[in-house]
Amino acid sequence: MKRAHDDDRTETPCSIARTLEVVGDKWTLLILREAAVEGMTRFAEFKERLGIAPDLLSTRLGALVDSGVMVKQPYREPGSRTRFSYHLTPAGEELRLILAALQQWGDENRPRAVGPSMVRRSVDQGRPIRVAFVDDTGTAVPMDSVKFLRTASYPS
Amino acid sequence: MKRAHDDDRTETPCSIARTLEVVGDKWTLLILREAAVEGMTRFAEFKERLGIAPDLLSTRLGALVDSGVMVKQPYREPGSRTRFSYHLTPAGEELRLILAALQQWGDENRPRAVGPSMVRRSVDQGRPIRVAFVDDTGTAVPMDSVKFLRTASYPS
Repeated sequence: MKRAHDDDRTETPCSIARTLEVVGDKWTLLILREAAVEGMTRFAEFKERLGIAPDLLSTRLGALVDSGVMVKQPYREPGSRTRFSYHLTPAGEELRLILAALQQWGDENRPRAVGPSMVRRSVDQGRPIRVAFVDDTGTAVPMDSVKFLRTASYPS
Repeated sequence: MKRAHDDDRTETPCSIARTLEVVGDKWTLLILREAAVEGMTRFAEFKERLGIAPDLLSTRLGALVDSGVMVKQPYREPGSRTRFSYHLTPAGEELRLILAALQQWGDENRPRAVGPSMVRRSVDQGRPIRVAFVDDTGTAVPMDSVKFLRTASYPS
């Protein structure tokens, strides 16, 4: 499998664009939501919950496996044929931060009167969790205290 | 203009999906990158930097204005006709967190040999900034210490 970072000459220098090559599709992000937020693993579960056509789902899951975000595993229940489940790799688990950022923006800027359907909590103490910018001491900093700077690798 | 949150009955209960209704398109995200990360405002700048067809760009910018993420302003340079620039609203500025999360994932999971083309720094002290989960004390917590929980508003 050819990974994008094997060739600096042909790939885009923008990290946002490189991530969008993996997740920049609405169906793909909704599949990842089911996997990363809801804990779904089975092809049949994704299909039923998303109401997505099987061939479309199969293509999207295959692309996620090819890009190293998911791994495909066979499983077999008694009396049934072999089926497949899909599990997030460590790179896939890291997408939870992107999904949570999308979730948070929707909750804040497109709220529903009934409130959010899901919340984020710390595993140990159940504290409310949000996505934020943090500095190198692990302390949250306000959104308007962050700037983006071009490096020497920025295309001239 | 009808906003999604005007009607709880017809809109999706998933906040991620509601955000994707606004930004879930690759061109739209790249336009937002130019605006939020690079500080671009003018139609001609977006067009030139992205190499996007003018009608496509016009449609995407119009949708961003309709959804309250950008505002359109006329400007006029001496000797020229009136042109338009596009500026992020506060809701649009908050999308920087999503863009930074996409950027960070790309830098970590699709790195280039020459390093990232952009970095995030704190405005005042120039400290490195990353996107992370934080608890209600403003302290960063590890990715695997966060769980997503369904609320009473979760569709049954």
